Amino acid sequence: MVLILNGPNLNLLGRREPEVYGRTTLEELEALCEAWGAELGLGVAFRQTNYEGQLIEWVQQAHQEGFLAIVLNPGALTHYSYALLDAIRAQPLPVVEVHLTNLHAREPFRQHSVTASACRGVVSGFGPLSYKLALVYLAEVLEVGG
Amino acid sequence: MVLILNGPNLNLLGRREPEVYGRTTLEELEALCEAWGAELGLGVAFRQTNYEGQLIEWVQQAHQEGFLAIVLNPGALTHYSYALLDAIRAQPLPVVEVHLTNLHAREPFRQHSVTASACRGVVSGFGPLSYKLALVYLAEVLEVGG
Amino acid sequence: MVLILNGPNLNLLGRREPEVYGRTTLEELEALCEAWGAELGLGVAFRQTNYEGQLIEWVQQAHQEGFLAIVLNPGALTHYSYALLDAIRAQPLPVVEVHLTNLHAREPFRQHSVTASACRGVVSGFGPLSYKLALVYLAEVLEVGG
Amino acid sequence: MVLILNGPNLNLLGRREPEVYGRTTLEELEALCEAWGAELGLGVAFRQTNYEGQLIEWVQQAHQEGFLAIVLNPGALTHYSYALLDAIRAQPLPVVEVHLTNLHAREPFRQHSVTASACRGVVSGFGPLSYKLALVYLAEVLEVGG
Amino acid sequence: MVLILNGPNLNLLGRREPEVYGRTTLEELEALCEAWGAELGLGVAFRQTNYEGQLIEWVQQAHQEGFLAIVLNPGALTHYSYALLDAIRAQPLPVVEVHLTNLHAREPFRQHSVTASACRGVVSGFGPLSYKLALVYLAEVLEVGG
Amino acid sequence: MVLILNGPNLNLLGRREPEVYGRTTLEELEALCEAWGAELGLGVAFRQTNYEGQLIEWVQQAHQEGFLAIVLNPGALTHYSYALLDAIRAQPLPVVEVHLTNLHAREPFRQHSVTASACRGVVSGFGPLSYKLALVYLAEVLEVGG
Amino acid sequence: MVLILNGPNLNLLGRREPEVYGRTTLEELEALCEAWGAELGLGVAFRQTNYEGQLIEWVQQAHQEGFLAIVLNPGALTHYSYALLDAIRAQPLPVVEVHLTNLHAREPFRQHSVTASACRGVVSGFGPLSYKLALVYLAEVLEVGG
Amino acid sequence: MVLILNGPNLNLLGRREPEVYGRTTLEELEALCEAWGAELGLGVAFRQTNYEGQLIEWVQQAHQEGFLAIVLNPGALTHYSYALLDAIRAQPLPVVEVHLTNLHAREPFRQHSVTASACRGVVSGFGPLSYKLALVYLAEVLEVGG
Amino acid sequence: MVLILNGPNLNLLGRREPEVYGRTTLEELEALCEAWGAELGLGVAFRQTNYEGQLIEWVQQAHQEGFLAIVLNPGALTHYSYALLDAIRAQPLPVVEVHLTNLHAREPFRQHSVTASACRGVVSGFGPLSYKLALVYLAEVLEVGG
Amino acid sequence: MVLILNGPNLNLLGRREPEVYGRTTLEELEALCEAWGAELGLGVAFRQTNYEGQLIEWVQQAHQEGFLAIVLNPGALTHYSYALLDAIRAQPLPVVEVHLTNLHAREPFRQHSVTASACRGVVSGFGPLSYKLALVYLAEVLEVGG
Amino acid sequence: MVLILNGPNLNLLGRREPEVYGRTTLEELEALCEAWGAELGLGVAFRQTNYEGQLIEWVQQAHQEGFLAIVLNPGALTHYSYALLDAIRAQPLPVVEVHLTNLHAREPFRQHSVTASACRGVVSGFGPLSYKLALVYLAEVLEVGG
Amino acid sequence: MVLILNGPNLNLLGRREPEVYGRTTLEELEALCEAWGAELGLGVAFRQTNYEGQLIEWVQQAHQEGFLAIVLNPGALTHYSYALLDAIRAQPLPVVEVHLTNLHAREPFRQHSVTASACRGVVSGFGPLSYKLALVYLAEVLEVGG
Repeated sequence: MVLILNGPNLNLLGRREPEVYGRTTLEELEALCEAWGAELGLGVAFRQTNYEGQLIEWVQQAHQEGFLAIVLNPGALTHYSYALLDAIRAQPLPVVEVHLTNLHAREPFRQHSVTASACRGVVSGFGPLSYKLALVYLAEVLEVGG
Repeated sequence: MVLILNGPNLNLLGRREPEVYGRTTLEELEALCEAWGAELGLGVAFRQTNYEGQLIEWVQQAHQEGFLAIVLNPGALTHYSYALLDAIRAQPLPVVEVHLTNLHAREPFRQHSVTASACRGVVSGFGPLSYKLALVYLAEVLEVGG
Repeated sequence: MVLILNGPNLNLLGRREPEVYGRTTLEELEALCEAWGAELGLGVAFRQTNYEGQLIEWVQQAHQEGFLAIVLNPGALTHYSYALLDAIRAQPLPVVEVHLTNLHAREPFRQHSVTASACRGVVSGFGPLSYKLALVYLAEVLEVGG
Repeated sequence: MVLILNGPNLNLLGRREPEVYGRTTLEELEALCEAWGAELGLGVAFRQTNYEGQLIEWVQQAHQEGFLAIVLNPGALTHYSYALLDAIRAQPLPVVEVHLTNLHAREPFRQHSVTASACRGVVSGFGPLSYKLALVYLAEVLEVGG
Repeated sequence: MVLILNGPNLNLLGRREPEVYGRTTLEELEALCEAWGAELGLGVAFRQTNYEGQLIEWVQQAHQEGFLAIVLNPGALTHYSYALLDAIRAQPLPVVEVHLTNLHAREPFRQHSVTASACRGVVSGFGPLSYKLALVYLAEVLEVGG
Repeated sequence: MVLILNGPNLNLLGRREPEVYGRTTLEELEALCEAWGAELGLGVAFRQTNYEGQLIEWVQQAHQEGFLAIVLNPGALTHYSYALLDAIRAQPLPVVEVHLTNLHAREPFRQHSVTASACRGVVSGFGPLSYKLALVYLAEVLEVGG
Repeated sequence: MVLILNGPNLNLLGRREPEVYGRTTLEELEALCEAWGAELGLGVAFRQTNYEGQLIEWVQQAHQEGFLAIVLNPGALTHYSYALLDAIRAQPLPVVEVHLTNLHAREPFRQHSVTASACRGVVSGFGPLSYKLALVYLAEVLEVGG
Repeated sequence: MVLILNGPNLNLLGRREPEVYGRTTLEELEALCEAWGAELGLGVAFRQTNYEGQLIEWVQQAHQEGFLAIVLNPGALTHYSYALLDAIRAQPLPVVEVHLTNLHAREPFRQHSVTASACRGVVSGFGPLSYKLALVYLAEVLEVGG
Repeated sequence: MVLILNGPNLNLLGRREPEVYGRTTLEELEALCEAWGAELGLGVAFRQTNYEGQLIEWVQQAHQEGFLAIVLNPGALTHYSYALLDAIRAQPLPVVEVHLTNLHAREPFRQHSVTASACRGVVSGFGPLSYKLALVYLAEVLEVGG
Repeated sequence: MVLILNGPNLNLLGRREPEVYGRTTLEELEALCEAWGAELGLGVAFRQTNYEGQLIEWVQQAHQEGFLAIVLNPGALTHYSYALLDAIRAQPLPVVEVHLTNLHAREPFRQHSVTASACRGVVSGFGPLSYKLALVYLAEVLEVGG
Repeated sequence: MVLILNGPNLNLLGRREPEVYGRTTLEELEALCEAWGAELGLGVAFRQTNYEGQLIEWVQQAHQEGFLAIVLNPGALTHYSYALLDAIRAQPLPVVEVHLTNLHAREPFRQHSVTASACRGVVSGFGPLSYKLALVYLAEVLEVGG
Repeated sequence: MVLILNGPNLNLLGRREPEVYGRTTLEELEALCEAWGAELGLGVAFRQTNYEGQLIEWVQQAHQEGFLAIVLNPGALTHYSYALLDAIRAQPLPVVEVHLTNLHAREPFRQHSVTASACRGVVSGFGPLSYKLALVYLAEVLEVGG
């Protein structure tokens, strides 16, 4: 079971600057992730919050909740939440950081991730497919799926 | 109806470093805003929170709640909350950023606003009157009042 | 009586990059200020120059000329004229810095004001209404008008 | 009575990167603080949160709750929470900032504290004993104990 | 048909700092990519060079050679080859930048990519699977495979 | 008709650091420009000032005065006059920035031009011939001359 | 005889981002240069390469090959090739650096030239005419033409 | 004969922030300089302007006007007027830069002088006596006085 | 036995900027340390020098002299003496860095310690009590006292 | 009685890079200072050391030794000795910082003084006469001489 | 057998800026190295290229070609070729970086080496003798020679 | 006769962080240098100090003491002692800077040498052999030895 966590403002997906973030809503993204997970033999749980504290606690508790891995889109917290970085480092599960947009093609402040150094890797720029790629990776390393 | 949002530590207004922030309390500021709004033909709702996540959600929901504009004093979140910036950009209402003090005359870290680029403009340095000026502007552009 | 001072290139208002600065000309802005001043019980004098030296001298002499306050749009001098900063500091009147555009949403060099630290506050981003807000503030603190 | 506040991820103490943070759990740390407080004649209350907003409010309310001083380990918020800085400045109690690890021997981002300037001082690098040193200081200046 | 391009020092894969880059050789990586491509219905061509000029020309000519997309691991050229950036911008195919290692967890100079802004996105940190994820993405957007 | 504008200290040309700026005087440069203009079928007007304000006004008024283009050597104002930049942007004529010396081979502060971004292009380092090259360009794009 | 050297990606001229670089192809540019040269009494040789090493060697050998001057468009190597800078310094011919676009109006990394300090001067921003201006200069200083 | 030049805002001396700049007026300073000059056998001419252009021209013309040396207090132009720097370099007289206040003990922007590198030296921090020290130096090197 | 070392200017304690450093003299501080040491079962030796070289040698020799730990207040050497840093690293005793004042609340240059990374930890801001806290820590880890 | 202190390498004056520092030896400079002092009615004591610690102690003790003021040339310590800065601040005498050369016309590292902020002012660039100017100032403010 | 590799522009040695690089040609340097090698009992192979890619491949293949060590003068690639750095790290032989000139006494960009961190050490500033010193070192550590 | 000078903490060689600096003691290094000198026909004198002032004086006096050259390992003073830099510049002997470790592979602060620009060159990274290489160079240029 993989925990997919979404940070601030991702609840607005599809309506928020669609020329930047696309027209897929968060609900549609969740459905896509479930379908991709099913295809890959991975169960997925999907959550969103606008609170840094909540995101930190979900990351902290994922292992105890029985998840095997985390897919994490921290939203703008990517760029300043050292507390989220510490939460990732403080737990044992593999974490894949994902971004819908290609951060390297946007404003300067978006080009540095303070959370990525504690993750396995980063997938950035493929819209909803960024989540699929993360799941493909986890399916490989978790040796599940068929 | 205009939504007036106040961020961290503004609940302490009047007691907090009064030589810097003045002696008007948050309750008195709310009353002033209501009076100014009435004068300008604008209804106002007035909220305060110390949680970034709460502030983000109030900004996100203001349009759906039926507000026509937002007056926003993000407190110290002004200087680092890219998540709040994204929330402002993700919604359609005009937002006016206000500050009680003249940030340009204070510590270096207060001289950069990460949220202002997504706002219509900024009013900074006039004490409680900063809020009045924001309301005067909104009364003009919302074509209300008499 | 309030002195409204405009710096370099503001004489081109209305014709200069109208998609940035709007289509109101300087003459129209002057008329608006006079109307707003009348409404607020404030007389206004309105001047423009492309010379830093002239702007410095108008600021220096305003008190002796009998003005009670200054509304100052330094144009691009905002970003490098330490001599103008010193002129503001060297005289006793309250000064309100105004900008037509939201400097925080423009080029990096426009995001720092070297003159603002000596002013009461800054109003930025509301087009011609930036001047109105400055006058509203001054009407309040000068206790004039009716 | 001294209020001991712990920020994000300190709930994981003992399990989180024990080679960095040691093997004492938060519960054990609380017990130690109580014992040290008893020895010094100081009552202690011990709290932890992963929410910046909560930490701000505990700091804001400590004086009204009757505490005489605060021992504060802001976790990673140390490095970016200007809102927490403002909360410390906005209240009258002495605050001692503590860190388990020697921040000067860690990553560059941990070497700057944005909160420390509003505190009495900082104790950094002594593991759980950092809290004891803070209590020893407070026992001296609060003129309690016996 | 997808063109997979590898830059300087990737010919040493498997022997070069295996604790950093892993033990898969370039030949094995090529075989893996062919297998993944077959699975995804994508033909792949696989090339490596230590010359910036050669890499630029392969990128320039890919479209004329009939390729539909490029997977690009520029090696250390990622961090300084503005000429490679210009080559990517100067051609019409979608390009996915891949890295075996998580650049965010390595030396500072590796944390900035000068080429990524012209790519669709970046996959970084998953070892040989970084290439697979790129292919999965391309299979989706090229609407090939079965 | 092309307006050739020269900024601060160019009146000293020929006498000022001749090992840097050469021995041609401003009068001789004017004569050269007239000769080159005649050759190219371009009339030229030639002005110099040490006042930023004057230079701004000449740039502002050139179009109304009937000029078709501007050749501009801002002297040291090149490096800090954002007001001059705004003047160039605020008017419709093509402007060519020229420098007698190769700014890239001089002090660091001379290697950044704040005015060039609003010009068609820059010619730097060819002594008086820098002006000729600017005129050659304008003769081409103004479709004059024979 | 003047050697005209073009660096990486200039072989794509006319097809590469034509809204930035224009629609003239490299072949057409070569023909233009030959025509301009003929007009000015200058023979021209015209070369392009995507290899830094090749460009360095052409610069090194130009004097021995009998050329009298070099017109050099280093493409993106302008911004990082200190080896090319050294090659220019290591040979005796006058070199004119040319750019099709106005580098000052583009991305920050394009605003610094590491090669220009060793050249006679720079012509930037006039499209193909940048090459003509360089030839006009060389015709003057080589005392040829008629 | 020594020319003593004073830049922007020095006309306000004595009234301008007297706790910073002292209570001596510009007229009194002029009288002091004349007295000191008389004592040292030096005639002095004393001028003030708020215009950079005027200051540049006075510096340019001093030699032709027959002065033997310049004492220069550029006011805030010290910190950004590269055009004034060029004027100093473009003329042959010895120039002594003076400041009433100790710039090293003030705001960061006042700690760098862009004009000083072209002067003989700098005297900073001694109030009106800074001018006397400059005159003492000039009396020595001009071999005048008795 | 603990060696307490004090660097430059600490001999002036009590007389030096007492509003910053307090009114306790160095002799009184020594007596306090002896009393605190006695209370904690720790002997103390107390030294001061204004010479970096002397401080380095005391640190180097402490182990051979039989000391068990060092309390070190390097004074202003904290901010630039890499040689002192090397001395601390080159010897085996635990070192606690202490400062009377809260360095985070002072000038920017005081906010970086080049010596702290080689110490166990830092105690900063508690006046003479900073030394007591260091001793309390050492008493704990040296397992002495009763 | 004025104490004239010279820091590292000033003992080599006259022999050390005479094209930079001049040909006056330290002994000759001492004689000059004595003569100037005599002329001004000031006794002078003249010392030199290459040890930062010694310089600090001379500054510390000057008041107790009965001196009325200090003229200080810290040599290269000017640029990094925060300990010397603290010594100046820790004592009550007026200190004038002097430099033989014009530091603003030399290497970048010489353009910042860490000691000057605690001095009355700075005299820089007049060779041995820098010391004379300092004495002239002190004669004025110490109200001695005849 | 030691491989001596020379990067861009070293083929011009003796003719290239001889006042900087000396008058020894590359052929003479090769002969010197052979003689020094013979003296030290070391065979040497000597190569030069202007292509980064070639240099990378020579470094990569040296071990397989049977060389025991590399002496590397990367020319200007020293300052930006991270790909060369990676090649050095990717192979097992000891590498000594050499430079003819003292890079610390030249332009700022030459004062940072991106390749040196992967080498055993650096010898810089001794002209052709820099190569001899490298060979002396290798003779010692390769335990050859007599 | 060559003077070999060692700065702070080199007296601890062999015991100080041996995994970094090796196990050769200073006495053994002295013996090695004497043996190497004998082999090269160079007498050597060997000194160490922890005092910057002493090191400066040894450098100043070496010429008068009859030495022909200096080998200098400034220890950590390399990174901040501008006074030592001035001492090297102030005397006529050739100086070779040596370091045991490869500074480019260590902490950032060790990668800049403030003293090297005044030396002939630098040898860094070869352990005790760094000294031998320096002696080999000096034997060559002093034309001594047999």
